[in-house]
Amino acid sequence: MRAVVIENGAPRVVERPAPLAVGGDAVIRVTLAGICGTDLEIARGYLEFGGVPGHEFVGIVEAAPDRGWIGRRVVGEINVGCGACERCATGWARHCPERSVLGIVARDGAFAERVALPMANLHAVPDAIPDDAAVFTEPLAAAYEILEQVAIHPGDRALVLGDGRLGQLCAVVLARAGCSTVLEGRHPEKMARMSPFGLETVDAGAPHRRRFDLVVEATGSPAGLRRALDTVRPRGTIVLKSTYHGKVELELAGLVIDEVSVIGSRCGPFAPALEHLASDRAAIDGMITATFPLARAREAFARASEPDALKVLLVP
Amino acid sequence: MRAVVIENGAPRVVERPAPLAVGGDAVIRVTLAGICGTDLEIARGYLEFGGVPGHEFVGIVEAAPDRGWIGRRVVGEINVGCGACERCATGWARHCPERSVLGIVARDGAFAERVALPMANLHAVPDAIPDDAAVFTEPLAAAYEILEQVAIHPGDRALVLGDGRLGQLCAVVLARAGCSTVLEGRHPEKMARMSPFGLETVDAGAPHRRRFDLVVEATGSPAGLRRALDTVRPRGTIVLKSTYHGKVELELAGLVIDEVSVIGSRCGPFAPALEHLASDRAAIDGMITATFPLARAREAFARASEPDALKVLLVP
Repeated sequence: MRAVVIENGAPRVVERPAPLAVGGDAVIRVTLAGICGTDLEIARGYLEFGGVPGHEFVGIVEAAPDRGWIGRRVVGEINVGCGACERCATGWARHCPERSVLGIVARDGAFAERVALPMANLHAVPDAIPDDAAVFTEPLAAAYEILEQVAIHPGDRALVLGDGRLGQLCAVVLARAGCSTVLEGRHPEKMARMSPFGLETVDAGAPHRRRFDLVVEATGSPAGLRRALDTVRPRGTIVLKSTYHGKVELELAGLVIDEVSVIGSRCGPFAPALEHLASDRAAIDGMITATFPLARAREAFARASEPDALKVLLVP
Repeated sequence: MRAVVIENGAPRVVERPAPLAVGGDAVIRVTLAGICGTDLEIARGYLEFGGVPGHEFVGIVEAAPDRGWIGRRVVGEINVGCGACERCATGWARHCPERSVLGIVARDGAFAERVALPMANLHAVPDAIPDDAAVFTEPLAAAYEILEQVAIHPGDRALVLGDGRLGQLCAVVLARAGCSTVLEGRHPEKMARMSPFGLETVDAGAPHRRRFDLVVEATGSPAGLRRALDTVRPRGTIVLKSTYHGKVELELAGLVIDEVSVIGSRCGPFAPALEHLASDRAAIDGMITATFPLARAREAFARASEPDALKVLLVP
């Protein structure tokens, strides 16, 4: 099959053996895949991942231990635990220290014609969700993770830092959960699509009248956390969504004095993301910047890296 | 009256007018006061506080708007809100942006013969608690703040970093709350007094078999947070108790990937601290390194700065 690998900092399409349905894995024919910030970081050498990248996808099950799943349209959770350790036993496979992560750690990903995942990771996609919406399940689930980690009260004042893909999805999820939400970004043209969601958009660094109960840091830059510390209220919560290379220098006395909570946040629950997409696709409407065939993965990665890009998709 | 002020980085005893019982304030004759890490930082110029330091005290009410309090033995909460803002109105005076803080911000403290505080800040001390235990109410309350901020489950594995005054109190409170608790420090002679509390003490930096559900950072040093990030489990909680000058350089990708929570923690509730001291003074037994008369404040500060010192007291 054809698959993308990273060579010398750029994606290249190569021939690879297709994965097999062994050891509880299903094999899925990928119909659509999305390029995420993590994929761009992997292309730059982040995590030293040498396999096939790609962890946002939708596809059709071609082979599976449970034959009832063959032919079903699915999306898949990306963490695969060892199944034997204490974390896996207590339901936290996605924090298993020996886990593989689809297209990120020790497991070939979805920028390929076929991908393998354990049955337990699969979620059937309701008919109401077309492929070009279902492919957003994984990043939308990452936004829903905030609601799993922080108790939101209607009317809470939320600020999202960063107008990229993940920042926009976080803002929409928080507004839908009842927060009075402000999105702060550097790209007015990207933020224009936020108008239907009843949230306010402002230029990065603009002064705010009051501090926020919740600040979500999704800028992808070390300066984001400093901005978050400046804009959160005492006893407020900062959710860190950005992962990036390198170190950040921080003054922490204010965090202690103001008793602020900083919570790291990564992958989230697929069920509420699928429910959301089945009832309302506005969250992702207008978010597809471009769609490329797999063979043009290099162009697709370049397009996804441009500052104005939201989501770039690949069709295997 | 006699009072301590900081001049050229050292405490000096001077004559000052005694405070008056005006505007809702009571005046308390201080019988015993404790020197805290923050006082030592103030002596080094931290917060540029030019008044009388001291925020850990016990004393007798001499004058008060409510005459029923005159003659009562009291301890006092240290934050005084403006009384007019949204935070004060919602019960969060200790996070009022205009607050004064006893002996720390815009309010003369307890290293003096008399100190003034609003009636609302005072707590009567039960007869069962002698002065040399009551003077620990404020730092013990700071340890109890952890239980207000983090849901503790019996058997949770807790690590406290730092064997100083606050670290020891945090370790005792966590052990009493049912945590399997380890105290990590650099001073075996200080940690020796921890043996009655059913907690383990280890040398700083020693390897641990497993990561911890909760890590309390009370080292007073920027390296403490890095150690906390290395020892907390995925989805675990770090409570930051240290405030210090300057910046800390951190790699934050691990915090996001492991979905760790970092919670700043400062002053705490007096009620559980007083209940604790009334029923069991073991937490603070053996913690008094030395007691000095106020006139020898300079020596007292020097003694409190030595690495082996736990609590140094002043008698006005």
